[in-house]
Amino acid sequence: MPKYLLSFLFLCLFSFQLFGQKKPNIIIFMIDDMGWQDTSYPFANEKSDFNKLYHTPNMERLAKIGVAFTDAYSTPVCTPTRVSLITGMNASKHHVTNWTAPMKDKPTGNQDNQMQEPVWNHNGMSPEPNIPHTIYATALPQILKDHGYFTIHAGKAHWASAGTPGSNPYSLGFTVNIAGTSTGRPASYWGEDNFGRTGSDYHAVENLQEYFGQNINLTEALTREALKTLEFPVKNHIPFFLNFCHYALHDPLMEDHRFIQKYIDKGMSSNEAKYASMIVGMDKSLGDVLDFLEKNKIEDETYLVFISDNGGLSNVPSRDGKPYTHNKPLRSGKGSIYEGGIRVPLIIKGNNKDGKNVRNSNPVIIEDMFPTILEIAGIKIPKTVQTIDGISMLKGLKNWKTVTKDRALVFHIPNKWTATDGDGYNYRSAIRKGQYKLIWSLRNDSFELYDLQNDLGEQDNIIQNPGMPSKAEELKLELKSILERNQAPMPKKKNIN
Amino acid sequence: MPKYLLSFLFLCLFSFQLFGQKKPNIIIFMIDDMGWQDTSYPFANEKSDFNKLYHTPNMERLAKIGVAFTDAYSTPVCTPTRVSLITGMNASKHHVTNWTAPMKDKPTGNQDNQMQEPVWNHNGMSPEPNIPHTIYATALPQILKDHGYFTIHAGKAHWASAGTPGSNPYSLGFTVNIAGTSTGRPASYWGEDNFGRTGSDYHAVENLQEYFGQNINLTEALTREALKTLEFPVKNHIPFFLNFCHYALHDPLMEDHRFIQKYIDKGMSSNEAKYASMIVGMDKSLGDVLDFLEKNKIEDETYLVFISDNGGLSNVPSRDGKPYTHNKPLRSGKGSIYEGGIRVPLIIKGNNKDGKNVRNSNPVIIEDMFPTILEIAGIKIPKTVQTIDGISMLKGLKNWKTVTKDRALVFHIPNKWTATDGDGYNYRSAIRKGQYKLIWSLRNDSFELYDLQNDLGEQDNIIQNPGMPSKAEELKLELKSILERNQAPMPKKKNIN
Repeated sequence: MPKYLLSFLFLCLFSFQLFGQKKPNIIIFMIDDMGWQDTSYPFANEKSDFNKLYHTPNMERLAKIGVAFTDAYSTPVCTPTRVSLITGMNASKHHVTNWTAPMKDKPTGNQDNQMQEPVWNHNGMSPEPNIPHTIYATALPQILKDHGYFTIHAGKAHWASAGTPGSNPYSLGFTVNIAGTSTGRPASYWGEDNFGRTGSDYHAVENLQEYFGQNINLTEALTREALKTLEFPVKNHIPFFLNFCHYALHDPLMEDHRFIQKYIDKGMSSNEAKYASMIVGMDKSLGDVLDFLEKNKIEDETYLVFISDNGGLSNVPSRDGKPYTHNKPLRSGKGSIYEGGIRVPLIIKGNNKDGKNVRNSNPVIIEDMFPTILEIAGIKIPKTVQTIDGISMLKGLKNWKTVTKDRALVFHIPNKWTATDGDGYNYRSAIRKGQYKLIWSLRNDSFELYDLQNDLGEQDNIIQNPGMPSKAEELKLELKSILERNQAPMPKKKNIN
Repeated sequence: MPKYLLSFLFLCLFSFQLFGQKKPNIIIFMIDDMGWQDTSYPFANEKSDFNKLYHTPNMERLAKIGVAFTDAYSTPVCTPTRVSLITGMNASKHHVTNWTAPMKDKPTGNQDNQMQEPVWNHNGMSPEPNIPHTIYATALPQILKDHGYFTIHAGKAHWASAGTPGSNPYSLGFTVNIAGTSTGRPASYWGEDNFGRTGSDYHAVENLQEYFGQNINLTEALTREALKTLEFPVKNHIPFFLNFCHYALHDPLMEDHRFIQKYIDKGMSSNEAKYASMIVGMDKSLGDVLDFLEKNKIEDETYLVFISDNGGLSNVPSRDGKPYTHNKPLRSGKGSIYEGGIRVPLIIKGNNKDGKNVRNSNPVIIEDMFPTILEIAGIKIPKTVQTIDGISMLKGLKNWKTVTKDRALVFHIPNKWTATDGDGYNYRSAIRKGQYKLIWSLRNDSFELYDLQNDLGEQDNIIQNPGMPSKAEELKLELKSILERNQAPMPKKKNIN
């Protein structure tokens, strides 16, 4: 064979390889303030009353084709979780330990008579250096974009305050942004209200004028827009990363007109019926996304991660009923260091070689998403500004079981999230390792120890039980050592003279 | 050679061809309300006082590497122009004859004692059928997207009113939208004002939170965002279509801090100095785009169309000085059927085979952009809902001279744009053919005839001159015939009893 022909063939092969090695698509489908029990799919070993109350057939459908993580964690509130996901860092290291305000330079912590809030990164995450009170880091979508991914953000962003580059998804490596701003909640869920766009509310939702004045829910409008943005990469066989973050179920609790009646008929109280209707709305959105993948015959090359950014809201009167019970059997809810505030639903659907209808009880945490997604994308972790805390959940794609059970997961919120301390709210750190979880109240400098294997509801503080003081001491040392290594912001007692 | 090798080679060749035949990139760089004289580049045969007053070095730079069209037309106001561009239809046919309101179902025409505004498509353009008071049409970006183009809209959109799909660039075939909404002007040009986003103003600009509270002009912020969106297609060698539409120079006239001092020092009046500074700002943006093309070595594969959507604003007191003189030697300004309202700067830069530093006096009109851009993209005009009125300007890419000089260009605004009839405002139609232009006042049913070759300023109505009544009759018949064919909306005299 003549030489030129060989070279030509080689070139051809190379170009085929470029075509052939298409990277998988990746979708993060993140729900806001969705609790571990806000679903008909049971993450606990037994089906709870909540699992019987709520209807999420598409989550059940997803679990059948994916892996459900029963012991998955976010942080107690939204921005820290979102920053951990996009940076791969634990909240105690990135120092965005509370939610960020719409406008910059406005720390959101409440004042306290006794405690002084530490300096924290109250302006959020920044892809550029030298922005005051931000964590400068390399963002996940930027890495994916640099490796040929078509990167889309749709829905709630809330990585940083306005007036800083981190508030702009286009500056974080996204090529498309629908409705992502510095705000953490919508002014309204209703098209009839123009999603609040007509008022002076900062939280008015952008990019949705098409639906103004119409009987359409925000969750539905965002779904339609997100799916539109996929048309280009799907048609042109470009791998995409869609970071689809619903505003739902965040307050204001507003009924989803399509799904409310069923819950009213059940005799549920007003707020709870609204909440239940919003759950069905977000589940319908998940179904629409799954349908889109099937219709376009890309379900097998598309990973989908379903997760919530923190536990379900459990404050009354925002919710109805008894406070801190809305995530039962888990204790407390959003904002809390107890399981109700941090344990979240997580289901990951892979390709046809990955686990299906599998449950996995390895403890995983939100910063694990960063290396996990890069591994799915076949990208070695490049040089990043930050050092990564997360561990890939996909070391072995086939069994999904490689994360060790005895790793330490750390939670840290040195801020005062609510004006009065709720159940496990404000000035808290915690470490989970294996079956044990140690909680540190930074206000009282006191500790609690729970055995999650035998006491999922964290009802029995076993710190004084036989043999447990040494276990507590061991966990306390490890927690403090991690917080010190991460130079975690710590509140101080005020000098009251 | 074995058969399989042949097939393989054939496949290789085919895949190379896919790679090799990269379509050119296309940028539309549209300025709002920029007059024919708002530049240091003279479109008239002689350099005017305005050409000496204003500074647009980057337009001069563009003209050196492109073709300047001296006889280019838009429509008298913004939305009709934008709809013509995206549909290829004349305003008399698409019936969006006036600007569209931010919210749907609000015709924008002023009331008149004598005249009844006709029914027109006051909700703008729609990519979906059966939306009341819209023109249903196939949008240019949708066709480009369907043919593999990465389609981006940045800046002012204003194709339709909120509550309809045409208000959403994502529904018009754009894959990215920065700041495009149903509004036709910004609430503020200043980052310090958050571009109006904090107020209740509909005109607040979206997608720019990064710049809130900062000393940055809207024109600059949009430029930075638009260039960011090009990173993905440039890096991945995907042809792009960028529809970059500045809000500038639309009112409110607000100084561009960077460029105002020079004009104050010249002793210019306040509004005029502000206006001049906004011109420099938009020219600097053009320079940034050209620099981007050079830096990324894609200037030779990228077409750029510089155009304005209508003539320069000439209303006093919005402007200073004598009304209707701001586009001299052209008569009147924005809203008018006289040349000052409809003749616009147009420069097109092609690839290395196309004309450079060339002037072309063929009459061209905004709907010509539709077939022109498709021809640049190498796309045969596909089946569209609408029939196209425009003619490609690029029949011969080399000489750019193929548009016939004697074609008829029609202008039609059967609405009352301003509360009082300015110079050539309200209820007007016109036809230009060759050197002659006939204007029809629909209010008075009277006609004027001008010889543009010898009277660019439309000062001498020659309709009674020897030989001219028959010329006027000929043009009148052609104009009426076109308006009838297009079922153009026509105002009626009110029955005053």
